[in-house]
Amino acid sequence: MPMPASVQQGRGMLPVTQSFSVSVTGAHDPALEAGVQRFVAQLSRHTGIPFPAKAGATATLTVRAEKGLDAVLKLGDDESYQLTVTSSSAELTAPTTLGALHGLQTFLQLVTITSSGFAVPAVTIIDQPRFPWRGMLIDVSRHFIPIDVLKRNLDGMAAVKMNVLHWHLSDDQGFRVESKTFPKLAGMGSEGHYYTQAEVRDFISYAHDRGIRVVPEFDTPGHSRSWFVGYPELASGEGPFTVENENGPSSVTDPTREETYKFMDKFVEEMGKLFPDAYFHIGGDEVDGKFWDSNPKIQAFKQAHGMKTNQDLQAYYNQRLQKILAKHHKIMIGWDEILHPDLPKTIVVQSWRGQESLAAAAKQGYSGLLSYGYYLDLMWPAARHYAIEPLSGGAAGLTPEQQKLILGGESCQWSEWVTPENIDSHIWPRNAVIAERLWSPQTVTDVNSMYTRMYAVSLQLESLGLKHNSARDRMLQRMAGTAEINSLRVLADVVEPVKDYSRWDDSKGPIDFHAPLNRMIDAVYPESERAREFSAQVQQFVQSGYRDQAAEARIRNWLTLWRDNDATLHPLLQQSALLQENIPVSQNLAMLGAAGLQALDYLDKGQAEPDLWKTQQLAVVEQAKNPVAGLLLMVVAPVQQLVEAAGKAPHQ
Amino acid sequence: MPMPASVQQGRGMLPVTQSFSVSVTGAHDPALEAGVQRFVAQLSRHTGIPFPAKAGATATLTVRAEKGLDAVLKLGDDESYQLTVTSSSAELTAPTTLGALHGLQTFLQLVTITSSGFAVPAVTIIDQPRFPWRGMLIDVSRHFIPIDVLKRNLDGMAAVKMNVLHWHLSDDQGFRVESKTFPKLAGMGSEGHYYTQAEVRDFISYAHDRGIRVVPEFDTPGHSRSWFVGYPELASGEGPFTVENENGPSSVTDPTREETYKFMDKFVEEMGKLFPDAYFHIGGDEVDGKFWDSNPKIQAFKQAHGMKTNQDLQAYYNQRLQKILAKHHKIMIGWDEILHPDLPKTIVVQSWRGQESLAAAAKQGYSGLLSYGYYLDLMWPAARHYAIEPLSGGAAGLTPEQQKLILGGESCQWSEWVTPENIDSHIWPRNAVIAERLWSPQTVTDVNSMYTRMYAVSLQLESLGLKHNSARDRMLQRMAGTAEINSLRVLADVVEPVKDYSRWDDSKGPIDFHAPLNRMIDAVYPESERAREFSAQVQQFVQSGYRDQAAEARIRNWLTLWRDNDATLHPLLQQSALLQENIPVSQNLAMLGAAGLQALDYLDKGQAEPDLWKTQQLAVVEQAKNPVAGLLLMVVAPVQQLVEAAGKAPHQ
Repeated sequence: MPMPASVQQGRGMLPVTQSFSVSVTGAHDPALEAGVQRFVAQLSRHTGIPFPAKAGATATLTVRAEKGLDAVLKLGDDESYQLTVTSSSAELTAPTTLGALHGLQTFLQLVTITSSGFAVPAVTIIDQPRFPWRGMLIDVSRHFIPIDVLKRNLDGMAAVKMNVLHWHLSDDQGFRVESKTFPKLAGMGSEGHYYTQAEVRDFISYAHDRGIRVVPEFDTPGHSRSWFVGYPELASGEGPFTVENENGPSSVTDPTREETYKFMDKFVEEMGKLFPDAYFHIGGDEVDGKFWDSNPKIQAFKQAHGMKTNQDLQAYYNQRLQKILAKHHKIMIGWDEILHPDLPKTIVVQSWRGQESLAAAAKQGYSGLLSYGYYLDLMWPAARHYAIEPLSGGAAGLTPEQQKLILGGESCQWSEWVTPENIDSHIWPRNAVIAERLWSPQTVTDVNSMYTRMYAVSLQLESLGLKHNSARDRMLQRMAGTAEINSLRVLADVVEPVKDYSRWDDSKGPIDFHAPLNRMIDAVYPESERAREFSAQVQQFVQSGYRDQAAEARIRNWLTLWRDNDATLHPLLQQSALLQENIPVSQNLAMLGAAGLQALDYLDKGQAEPDLWKTQQLAVVEQAKNPVAGLLLMVVAPVQQLVEAAGKAPHQ
Repeated sequence: MPMPASVQQGRGMLPVTQSFSVSVTGAHDPALEAGVQRFVAQLSRHTGIPFPAKAGATATLTVRAEKGLDAVLKLGDDESYQLTVTSSSAELTAPTTLGALHGLQTFLQLVTITSSGFAVPAVTIIDQPRFPWRGMLIDVSRHFIPIDVLKRNLDGMAAVKMNVLHWHLSDDQGFRVESKTFPKLAGMGSEGHYYTQAEVRDFISYAHDRGIRVVPEFDTPGHSRSWFVGYPELASGEGPFTVENENGPSSVTDPTREETYKFMDKFVEEMGKLFPDAYFHIGGDEVDGKFWDSNPKIQAFKQAHGMKTNQDLQAYYNQRLQKILAKHHKIMIGWDEILHPDLPKTIVVQSWRGQESLAAAAKQGYSGLLSYGYYLDLMWPAARHYAIEPLSGGAAGLTPEQQKLILGGESCQWSEWVTPENIDSHIWPRNAVIAERLWSPQTVTDVNSMYTRMYAVSLQLESLGLKHNSARDRMLQRMAGTAEINSLRVLADVVEPVKDYSRWDDSKGPIDFHAPLNRMIDAVYPESERAREFSAQVQQFVQSGYRDQAAEARIRNWLTLWRDNDATLHPLLQQSALLQENIPVSQNLAMLGAAGLQALDYLDKGQAEPDLWKTQQLAVVEQAKNPVAGLLLMVVAPVQQLVEAAGKAPHQ
C-alpha cells in the first residue's frame, strides 16, 4: 500500500536470510546511501535479523538511481521506479533517488514470513504516482507536537509514499516557530512550546532525506490571535490578546495599515529562508468579518478603495501578500477562500470545501489540492476517506488540461483533540488509504483488499516506531490502574469516538486546550476493526439464509463474550474516575450481546419471536445507538439486523 | 518498590489534579531542578494530565534538599529522605539532592487512579537504603546495546533507587569504548559498534543527574580477546585474533612483559579521566591458565619469581595493576578471583560465587559486593532472586564491623542472549525485586506482596519508556506476520525460557553472537505471571478439599482455553518458519488442558479415576515437562497435581 501502478507476479520467492545485502550503483548520492542504510535497519526490525553492517560480495538487492536528490525537492520531481524480484535476486532502478526510496519501501512491504523463512514473492513492479502532491497537514498549534513525534510520522509518510508535510505552524492557540526578527511571535504567542530554527532545519533535512517536502503554513489574516499577543498592532480589534483564553478577544489581521505589510515582508523574508520549499501557505480560511466591520478606520478604508465586501478586502490583502511572497521567490498557497480573479494563476488553492470548489478554480486556471474528505480528525472510517476521489463530482467534467491543475491532495490532522501520545492513532493506519488514493491508479478501489492491506501496513508502521497501536494499551492501563485490561480491551475494540464535529458540539462552550485528553474516547481507535469484521460475519450469515453454521458459531462467540464481559469489567470501571463514564456503554454492550444471542436462538428454532420480545429488544438497540461518553457502539447495526431477522417468517 | 524503611499510613488522600505543582526550596541545585522537571513529565505520562510548565502560586508538593549533587557521586553519599503526604499537601525533605530524587520516585509510585481521580494516600515515610551500593551490570560486549536503550534502563534503575551502573565494556566478543590512546582497541576489537568518548560523557552525565554512578569494567587478564585483535603483543598466546571467530585462538594477557604495564598505565590514565568514578573494575574472572602454561617464557618467569600457581601469577598482575590504578586515583574492584592477601584492603571483591566467598573476604578485611543469585540472564523467577540475602549463609556469622564491609550487590545482565529489542524484558520487572532486596530492611520478605508491587512497578516502568512488555507483542506479531496474535499470546503467557545455562548447553558448539534472536524463546517473559496465578488457584482449590467452586470455575476456564487454543494456533505456527518449532509446545498445552479438565470431572463426581487413565495422563505430564524449542511449559506442575489428586480416594 499504496498499490503500484503495475504489478506482474512472477514464480517463486526470494529468501531474505542473514546473508541478505544491498549494493548501490549509479550516481553517488549520500541521500540514497542513507536511505539504503535506513532500509536495512528497517528490514532488521521487520525480521529480527541483524544484517551485517558491511554488505557481502554478492548483493541480493541492487539499487540504481540515475540522479541524486536535489538540495531542495520540487513539485513534479520524477518519483518513478521499477522493481524486479526473482527467486535469486532483486533489482531496483529509478531515474532519481526519490523513486529508489519509494522502491525500497515497496520491497520492505513485500517481505513476509513464510513456512521457510522471510521471503519476497517474485514480481515485476513498474510504478509512479498518479498525483505529484500527496501531503499530510499536521496542526501543531492547538496542541503542540514535539519534533520526535513528527519525525516518526515522517517515517510513516515515507512508508506510504506521501511526499509533502504541510506544517500548520500558527493558529489562534499558538505560534510554534521561533522568529529571530519578531521574537515575540513564539515568545509570547505560545505557552513556551515551539520549535527553534535549528530544530526546524534539522526537521526539514530529515524530511528531505525521506523525499518529503515541508510546506509551512502561517495562517492569516484569520486564525491568527497568537500573532497578536506579542504584536497587537497587527490586529483589527482591541487587545490585550492571549493564546489561552478562548473567551478573550479573537481578531483578524488589519489589512489597511502599511505597517502590516512591512511586518509581513520581513516575516516572509525570514521564514522564506528557513523553509526552502517553493510553496508558502498563508492559510486565508474562515476570516471573521465582524472584526473588520466593527473598526471604523477599516470601514473607511474599504469605502475609499471602493470595496463592497470583506471578501474584496481579503483579496486586496492576499494580492499584497502575494507580491511579498513573489519578491521572496515563493508561490502562494491558501485555502478555498483565497480564490479571487485578481490573484495570479500561479497560486494554489487547497480545498476544504470539495471537488466543486476545486473544479471552479481549475476552470479559471488555478491549481488545486483536495483536502475535503481527508480530515482525519473527523473520525471517519478508512473506507469513507478511500472513496473520496479528487477527479469526481464537479472535477470529473474538467478537460484533461484542467485536470492536470489538480495537483493532488492532503490529509489533515487538526489537533484540537490530540496529544503527542495519541496523535499517531488518529493518523494511522487510516492515512495510508488516503496515500493510496493519491498514488495509485484511479481504478484501485476494492475496499476489502484495501482493509487487508491497510492492516498489514499498520503492523509495519508500528515496527517503524509509530505508536498508533501500542499507545492505546498504555492509555487503557493508565485508566484502569492495572496491566490486566482484557475486559477493557473487549469494550474498547467495539467502540469508536463520535464523528465529525459532534465532540465539539458536546463540549458546550469553548474547548480548553490544556485539559487532559486521557479518557476512553481519547484512547480508542477511530475505526473498530472488530465491529467491521463482526458486521461482515452477520452479513454472511444472513445471506446464507441463516444456514452458515460456521459464521453463526463465530457470531455466537462474540455475542457471548460481549454479554458476559460487563460482569468482569464493571468493577474495574467503577473504581476509576476516568472509566466511570463508560459504565453505560459496557451495559449496553452486554444487552446487545444478550439480544443477539436470543435472536439467534429464535432463528435456530425457526420460530418468529413474540412481538413483545422484539419490541423490547429494539428498544435496547435504539438506546445503544446513543453516544455515551463520546463513544459509539459499533456493533449495534448488525445486532439490530439479527433481531429484526428473527421477527420474520420462519425459514426452516 | 523498594519498600521504604518506615511507612506510617495517614488519613485521606491527596488529589492529583491539573492544578498540581511542585516548588523547590533549600540549596539551589540544577540537578534537583532538572529532577523535578523530569518528575512532572513522568507524572504527566502516568496520569495523562498536562501539568502547566510554570508552577502555580501554591505548590501541592514542596521539595527541599539541604545540599546539591556533587560533581562526582561518591559511595556512601547520604540518600535518605522524608516524605509527608496529607490530604491537602505533600512535603519532601532530604539532606541531599540524592535523597530528594529518591523521594520523588516514591511519590510517583504512590499516585494511583481512584474513583474520584488520581490521588496519593496520606502517609509519612522515613526512608534510607540498607546498602550503599545497589547496582546493575550490563554487558555490552557480547551484544552491543545502544546508548538510548541504556538510558531508558537508567530511568528504570532510578525508579527503583538503584545507584550504580556497572558497565561491562569489554570481553572476548567486543571492545566497546573509543580509546584515543589506543584506537585499535575499539577500532579493530569490535564490528564497528562502540561508544565514542562524547557519548560516554553524555551517558555519565545522564546517570549523574539521576543519582547513578557509572563504574566501567575492562575485563583483564582473561575475557580479553577483543584487546588482542588490534594489540596482539598483549596476549600470552599466538594470534591472529578476531572478535568474530569463537573457534579461533582465545587468550589471556601476558603479565610477564613490562610493555603490558606501560600499556595499562596509559590506558588507565585515559579511561580514568573519561570515567570520573572512584572505582575502576578490572574483571579478573575466569582466567584460563592454559595460555600461560603453554608459553615457555611465562613459565620461566613464574619459576624465576618463585610463583607456584597461575593464581600467584594473576595476583602479581593484579598487584601491578592495582598500583597503576592507585597512581591514577582509582580504587580497584574485581571478581572473586582477584582476592589475594598481597592486595591492599582498599580493593573491592564482587562475588559471583556466593555469600561464603564474600564472608571470607570480609574476614580478611576486604569490602565486597554480592552478585551471586542476581544473574538476570539465568531466567530465574523473581522470588528466587528476592530470597538471596547478602547477609545470609557464611555472611550471617560476620561481626557487625565485618558486615559493614558488605557494601551491597549488583544484578547482572550478561548479554549472550539479548538484543536491544528484548534486553528490557530480561531485566524488568525482575530487577526491581533485587533493588528492593538491597534497599529495604532485611525483614521485608513477603513474596505475595512483592509480586503485587512488582507488577505495579512494571506498569509504571513501561510508562517511563521501557519496553519490557510492549516488545513481546511486537516480536510475536513479527513471528506470526499478523497483528492477530491472541492465540499465540495464550501460549506465550504460560511458557518460560529454559533456566540457568541450559540454552548454552543446548546450543551445541560455540554461540554465534550475530545470529538472529527472533524466536519465541527470545520474546517470552522470563517468568510467567499466568502460570504463577494458575498454580496459586490450584493450591487454593486443593486446600479447600476440592470444594472451592469459584476457584474450580477459574481453573476450568483456563484449562478449557488451553485445551482449545491449539486448534486456532496450529495453522499460525505452521505457516511461519519462526514458529514451527513451537508446534509441540502448543500440543502439549492442549493435552494438559484436557487432562486437567478430566481430572476435575473425576473430582467433581467424587470417583477415583481408572488407573489406566491416570497412567496415560501422567505420561502426558511427563512429556510436557521436557523443554521444546528452549521453552518450559509452566503449568505442568499444577495440572499434575490435579491429575494425581483425582487418583486418590473419593472426597465426597
